[in-house]
Formats: sequence, structure tokens, C-alpha cells
Amino acid sequence: MRKVDPEKHQAKLQQILEAAVMCFAEKGFRGTSTNEICAAAGMSPGNLFHYFPNKQAVIEAIAEEDRREMSERFAQLADEPDAIVAIERLAKDLLKQCVDPVYAKIGVEVVAESMRNPEMAVLFAASEASIKGDLVALLKRGITKGQIDATLDPKIAATWLIALIDGAVSRSVLDRDFKLKTYTPTLMRMIRRFLE
Amino acid sequence: MRKVDPEKHQAKLQQILEAAVMCFAEKGFRGTSTNEICAAAGMSPGNLFHYFPNKQAVIEAIAEEDRREMSERFAQLADEPDAIVAIERLAKDLLKQCVDPVYAKIGVEVVAESMRNPEMAVLFAASEASIKGDLVALLKRGITKGQIDATLDPKIAATWLIALIDGAVSRSVLDRDFKLKTYTPTLMRMIRRFLE
Repeated sequence: MRKVDPEKHQAKLQQILEAAVMCFAEKGFRGTSTNEICAAAGMSPGNLFHYFPNKQAVIEAIAEEDRREMSERFAQLADEPDAIVAIERLAKDLLKQCVDPVYAKIGVEVVAESMRNPEMAVLFAASEASIKGDLVALLKRGITKGQIDATLDPKIAATWLIALIDGAVSRSVLDRDFKLKTYTPTLMRMIRRFLE
Repeated sequence: MRKVDPEKHQAKLQQILEAAVMCFAEKGFRGTSTNEICAAAGMSPGNLFHYFPNKQAVIEAIAEEDRREMSERFAQLADEPDAIVAIERLAKDLLKQCVDPVYAKIGVEVVAESMRNPEMAVLFAASEASIKGDLVALLKRGITKGQIDATLDPKIAATWLIALIDGAVSRSVLDRDFKLKTYTPTLMRMIRRFLE
């Protein structure tokens, strides 16, 4: 049996995931074959199968990575004493992602695929639940500290904040005028006025 | 040549469009064949071609109908002296549409298809431009009357309001807790605090 160098293995995994993300953004989860992912990653199908048994496993790994990144974002906000400032920072970060065409296209794919493929719906619902849980906790902290209006229901407020980011994904895809610099200050104002 | 009864013709058109909307919601614009639309409308392919030359023409007719309905909505708001109340009424109406699974699925399809099909992108961009123009006019009226904060840029504010509705479409598809009665009051509050 060949010995596996963990660093090389990790680098190869990353290379596959990055190639897959580009393919999925271009042609969708459904429209991308494992062969296309292999071609984009510059490897043979036999070699890909050392890392992922099938396309679904690649998608799951991408979702897992996204979930891990989101958890890290929330962890970094733990030090910010003002919950509204923390939420503004988060929204700014996410808006930056939304205007990245590859990220926006994957975002639309996630919604489109979730509505037709129950396996995908379950996978992405788990990511969603984790994000919403973290955001609800942040809103509750702000309410407890008197920074956020206590008459807001944290779960409903979190859902509308997430809807705003979903909406930014759609705007980024549909509206060529949707530019980060022009649109960020008004989002900040909307969030602050909503929560204060 | 057969004489065409305009009322019957109109009823048949409507029947085709309704059948097509159901098919598109279920299987997407791309995944639906004209044969499937015919089957759903209970007519032969030859008969369908009396009304629409191809699938693209059916989609254009649906977009046109949606645009007409949106224009009517804005026309009805002309009598409402308070611009914020008018926008709240509009948002309530649109939120009601968003929680309709067929409408929400078509909404997601429009975004997904626009990002891959330039012909669709042009078609839906025209609808978008018309809606945004009407909403900007409504915001300007509110600013002139001193009802809406004059420091807001009407175009940017309109875009974020549209993003909120886009987001409601995604929430409706992804989030099974997203219910009209629970979520409407917080949207109203978000809009009012944003604009006042």
C-alpha cells in the first residue's frame, strides 16, 4: 500500500474542490459531470475516486467547508462587544462574497437544486440551521445587553437578515449595477435601523 | 380559413400559460418540453403551435403577464397618499405571492436561468427595469412629500427593497418555517424603519 502524505492529500482535495466550484458555478450541480470536474482539476477519473466516491460527495465537502467558514466568522465576532456592530461586520463580509460571481452563482444553484432534489435540500438545510442558530444567539446577546430592541423576535429577525443576504445574491446575478461600494452603506443603515 | 372567437382564443391562451407555469415550477424552464406543456394543457402539439411558436414564446408571454400585473399593482397605489403605506401594501402583496410554492419556484428559476441563458437574462431584465422604475418613482414621491428620509438614494433604496422580496422567495423555498402570518409584521417594521 502506498503511503499517503497528509499535506499532499489535503492540497489535492483543495484542488478538486476549487475546480468543482468553478464547474458548478458555470454549469450547475446537475449539469456538471465528474469527468468535467476531473478535467478542470487536471486529473484522471480513477485518481478523483481516491478522494471522492461520487459528485454528491464533492458537493457535501463544499457545503461542509462553507459551514466551517461560517462558524469561524461567528467565532471571530465573539470578541466584538456591540452585537449590532458584529452583525454589520458579518453582513459586510457576506455582501463581499455575494458580489463574487462564482459565489453568487453557487448560491443560486443551492436554492434551485434544493427545491428539486430532497438530498440536497437536507444537506443545505443543515448548513442553514447552523448559521441561523449562530445569528439568533448573536441577536439574543444584543437584546440582553440592551443594544438590540427587545421587542424583536430573534428567530424572525435572523430570518429576515438572512433573506437580505439571499436577496443580495439574486441582485448580484440579475442586476449589473449592483456594486459593493455603492450598496454597502445602505445595507448597514437598513440593518442598524431595523435592530436598534 | 376558420373564424377565431376572440374570447375562446383568450381562454385557450390562459389555459396554456397556466399549464406551462405548473410545468416550469415542477421541472424548470430548461427541463420542461413543449410536449409536457401540451399534455398538461390537454391539447395536441399541433394545436399548441396555433398559439405559441415555441417554448421561448410561452416564457415571454408569462413574463409579459407578470409585468402587466406588476404595473397594475403600482397603478392601484397611485391613490394612496402616504408613500410608505403604499410600499407596505405592495410588500404585503408580494410576500403573499412569495409563499405560494409555484410562484416561489418560478422566481428561483428566473434567477437560475438568467445567469446561464442570455436571452432569458434580457427578457427578465426588462421586467426588472420596469418594476424598479415604478418603485423609484414611488420613493421619490415619498421624499418630495417629506414622508421618506431625503438622505436615501431612491435607486439604491429600491434595489434593497427588491432584494428583500428576492430573499423572501429564497426563504419560502428553503425554510419550511417561513410563514406569511409570522413573518409579515417584521417585514413591515423593517421597511418602515428603513424609509422613515
